[in-house]
Amino acid sequence: MRGYVGLVARVNLSSNSVEICELDEEFAYRYLGGRGFCARILYDEIKQGVDPLSPENVLVFATGPLTGTSFPSSGRYHVGAKSPLTGGIGESNAGGFFGPYMKLAGFDALIVEGASQKPVYLLLESGRVKILPASALWGKTTYETQALLRQKHGSNARVACIGPAGENGVLISCIICDAGRAAGRTGLGAVMGSKKLKAVVARGSRSVELADPEKARREALRLFKKLRENRVTSKVFPERGTASAIGVVNRAGVLPTKNFQESLFEPWLDKSDRELMQKILVGKKACWSCPMACGRRTRVASKEFSGEGDGPEYEAIWALGPMCGVSSIEAIAKANYLANELGLDAISLGNTIACAMELNKRGLLPKEKLVGVRLEFGNPYALIECVWRTAYRVGIGEDISLGAKRLAERYGAPDVAMHAKGLELPAYDPRGLQGMALAYATSNRGGCHLRALVVMHELFGVKEVHDRFSTVGKARLVKEMQDAFAVIDSLVVCKFLFYAISIDDIVPYLCAATGWELGVDQLRTIGERIYNLERLFINREGFGEADDALPKRLVESPISSGESAGHVARLEEMLGEYYALRGWERGAPTRQKLDELGIG
Amino acid sequence: MRGYVGLVARVNLSSNSVEICELDEEFAYRYLGGRGFCARILYDEIKQGVDPLSPENVLVFATGPLTGTSFPSSGRYHVGAKSPLTGGIGESNAGGFFGPYMKLAGFDALIVEGASQKPVYLLLESGRVKILPASALWGKTTYETQALLRQKHGSNARVACIGPAGENGVLISCIICDAGRAAGRTGLGAVMGSKKLKAVVARGSRSVELADPEKARREALRLFKKLRENRVTSKVFPERGTASAIGVVNRAGVLPTKNFQESLFEPWLDKSDRELMQKILVGKKACWSCPMACGRRTRVASKEFSGEGDGPEYEAIWALGPMCGVSSIEAIAKANYLANELGLDAISLGNTIACAMELNKRGLLPKEKLVGVRLEFGNPYALIECVWRTAYRVGIGEDISLGAKRLAERYGAPDVAMHAKGLELPAYDPRGLQGMALAYATSNRGGCHLRALVVMHELFGVKEVHDRFSTVGKARLVKEMQDAFAVIDSLVVCKFLFYAISIDDIVPYLCAATGWELGVDQLRTIGERIYNLERLFINREGFGEADDALPKRLVESPISSGESAGHVARLEEMLGEYYALRGWERGAPTRQKLDELGIG
Repeated sequence: MRGYVGLVARVNLSSNSVEICELDEEFAYRYLGGRGFCARILYDEIKQGVDPLSPENVLVFATGPLTGTSFPSSGRYHVGAKSPLTGGIGESNAGGFFGPYMKLAGFDALIVEGASQKPVYLLLESGRVKILPASALWGKTTYETQALLRQKHGSNARVACIGPAGENGVLISCIICDAGRAAGRTGLGAVMGSKKLKAVVARGSRSVELADPEKARREALRLFKKLRENRVTSKVFPERGTASAIGVVNRAGVLPTKNFQESLFEPWLDKSDRELMQKILVGKKACWSCPMACGRRTRVASKEFSGEGDGPEYEAIWALGPMCGVSSIEAIAKANYLANELGLDAISLGNTIACAMELNKRGLLPKEKLVGVRLEFGNPYALIECVWRTAYRVGIGEDISLGAKRLAERYGAPDVAMHAKGLELPAYDPRGLQGMALAYATSNRGGCHLRALVVMHELFGVKEVHDRFSTVGKARLVKEMQDAFAVIDSLVVCKFLFYAISIDDIVPYLCAATGWELGVDQLRTIGERIYNLERLFINREGFGEADDALPKRLVESPISSGESAGHVARLEEMLGEYYALRGWERGAPTRQKLDELGIG
Repeated sequence: MRGYVGLVARVNLSSNSVEICELDEEFAYRYLGGRGFCARILYDEIKQGVDPLSPENVLVFATGPLTGTSFPSSGRYHVGAKSPLTGGIGESNAGGFFGPYMKLAGFDALIVEGASQKPVYLLLESGRVKILPASALWGKTTYETQALLRQKHGSNARVACIGPAGENGVLISCIICDAGRAAGRTGLGAVMGSKKLKAVVARGSRSVELADPEKARREALRLFKKLRENRVTSKVFPERGTASAIGVVNRAGVLPTKNFQESLFEPWLDKSDRELMQKILVGKKACWSCPMACGRRTRVASKEFSGEGDGPEYEAIWALGPMCGVSSIEAIAKANYLANELGLDAISLGNTIACAMELNKRGLLPKEKLVGVRLEFGNPYALIECVWRTAYRVGIGEDISLGAKRLAERYGAPDVAMHAKGLELPAYDPRGLQGMALAYATSNRGGCHLRALVVMHELFGVKEVHDRFSTVGKARLVKEMQDAFAVIDSLVVCKFLFYAISIDDIVPYLCAATGWELGVDQLRTIGERIYNLERLFINREGFGEADDALPKRLVESPISSGESAGHVARLEEMLGEYYALRGWERGAPTRQKLDELGIG
């Protein structure tokens, strides 16, 4: 066994110290990288009950064995910490170039402990880490921060940073890199903010050494060919981007509208995604080594919603659009530009604004909270004002900054919050996608589509097709996808590849890159190990069977119209089977399962 | 001599100490209160060259001998420090109730030295001062801060506080009290912010003792009668508010438009102030003991510009309206609500945004500064976005936060800044009001209409009328008004009274209140003393004859159209005479003048 081994940096911001060691290969072999590293390190190093915004929280940035290689779409990095939003595991990843440059700077992982007194940023370069002052950057937007740091460190420096939202402890804040790429979910921007860590700069110079470069080259060619031969990866994403999903989801009646009060968005029913986007589209954007280039650059020229930047992508279009009843793509784009600039998770933001809109409709918000905002579904001006107010936590923004669950609880209507485990739900109504219902409910980090994107099979017609209204076989499908996606997030590569390739396709390249010998079964076991370890983390923080749940509205109130009318999420038909397949009891891994996975 | 004597508190926020002593009556007799106290204390206690945002700056809040009495419109307080905006003397006053409550709490003056490590606020009550923690208030808007502190200290507590703008060191930030009353000019919000002083709370319980209450009562009745008999104070202000000035000024062709590029605002030429305001007006608001009630409460119900609050008053309407080419009163009101909420001086803000708009029109602003803002004259959305961006100093807001002079200098076009001595000019084009030209140029605090409101005589037809295009007699008029207004600001009462009464009318009440014996000549001498002392302050900081000036545009480029077409500001015809009348040489008081005024 001779694999890839880079460096692990451990930075303590309280004591201003840096330790660097080589990555333990055995550790890498068991957890791969990215999300796997995060799961193990967070579980081992964060004590139960720690305040996520205290110096005791531990923040991990990690690349994986495929990051920065010629493997397609290998431009991602993963970040983890205890989530200030959910109180459970916080983890998220982002594309672009930051991950590869972190790897080119020599690092597989960066572990940040403690908290600085004054704002700082970290510079990763040539196997070394410097803690540098960032007082002059504090308060700056993510755009400004990236520009200033790249001006200082050169254009081959890549920056992952927070905006004012993270600095201000906004629980739905994110980490932004490469212009507008977000490690969005679970509020990790606030963890950086609490540590007074404004940014991490990775300046790459090394190249990634592969165990068998020639085999890797051949494998890469084979994989790129597969991507070229697949309609989604060669046509849909390159030509239409992620917005391509809107029409399908809307027509299927599973596009959550006005805080899941409706499930289709009338104003867009007769509109193609091309029509929707053409007003604002200016260009495409690809991550490292990615032939899909699903990212979009846009510009809004109107006086009202003037702006320019990355996205909005599918989830942001939905969250800031239909979810809030807003139909103007210019307004949605503007809200998204601001979310990126100020460092807010667009999904949680849109979902929470929608929650506030419903609370207001029900007369539950006090008048003084609504100064300056006519908070009504469909009002684009209220949407935009809510974005900056949230980042700065003023007026109604202070409420929204807490996320939907706390917001709805604060005003005595917890059922109005559309979340799972405290994380705001994304853009698929699970009442018309039973597999997604189980995926949301059992996701360790909370309401998320990216821990098992079952909708690929239930709606997008990828490979084996599953009846979306049926619960049969969904427990197995969700379990298998969750484990496979844990692998994907640990490698760390893009999930969109899996419209064209399968997890089996990864094995040869991974072996060529690392020199390891492993098969697909071992990979799946690693995925399961990671998933169980994350589950142990949240169990320790008090999450149990009762938290593998969805909001009342989704399990009790049927969708009222459209192709999914009459359906509710039938979790109870799947959960028992799911737990049995997982070897879990009451939402927690059994001793036997842990032994089987070799988790000490 | 037996006069009013209250307490003076000296608070050092670096050492966390409070000293309280009785006001020295001799001092009061020489400087009255308010602005006079500020002038003397700032001159004596601030060393030359001190950084205005350092702990070495001294911040003074002062009431006057008429504050909180039955004297009409005696609801004001004065505040002073070295100005971070101009580098000269910073001083401003505001109406409402904070001043009277400070007096009812026992205080004539509060002197704040040093700077706290953590956010604090001061509680003035029953002759005592407490330094209390304000970390939970930091980041809050002025509305939120007032509400929280009044919730805690009761509704007879009044609050003067800063918003995010002051906290963030915005050089055009202000101090807000009584909902939306601003001590707006010269950036004193940033001085509070630099001292980590979020608010001063005055909780009143004592009553103001007068030397001869019966005589004061009679005098008050006489003065209120005069106010009832005057058209402006009994009709115009009560019925139409300060907005009443717009039509007159606009039709006279002296309403600065689009950064003084034009001097009348076409869209409003055929519109009465009633028509303009009726869309948003909901009520009137009076300060302590004021029969005029010129303040306006407004509400905007439209989705676009939704909001509610105090104002906008004349100057804000102009600055955020015609000065930026914006004609929608709803948009102007919205921008004004945000300015109050975030703690920005509406005059300097509107003026500086207009400056940025002109710089942009000339292609002088870099593209990356314009992210999210189509900064064009007449774009209300850009205006509104600039407000919050300025308070938080992000994007173009960072530039605007510096004020017009620094902004225009930064982009290589200093002549585009419409300021005097670094303070942004207000709402009268001095090219068509020669007295105002001299008033702006010689104002100690910089470009300001409130140090000699010559327009009362030049345009509003009050008492002796002066030809506004003539420079004859203007030097004397300006000098006399400057001295008289220094008295008014020191008593501290409202200048609007002087549409109906003269400075002579004050004397009997002042004597009844204080037990002093003084005549109008003595009062005028006190005013002159204060004016000269302020001049000494700015001379010491390097301001000289060259700074008694106006922007090139106003002295070289004639107004292009309307009733004032063809005119420029003819400063050089007045300055010599003005200096002679003042007993100044090259913009500085002579030894002889200082001896005459008894300034040591």
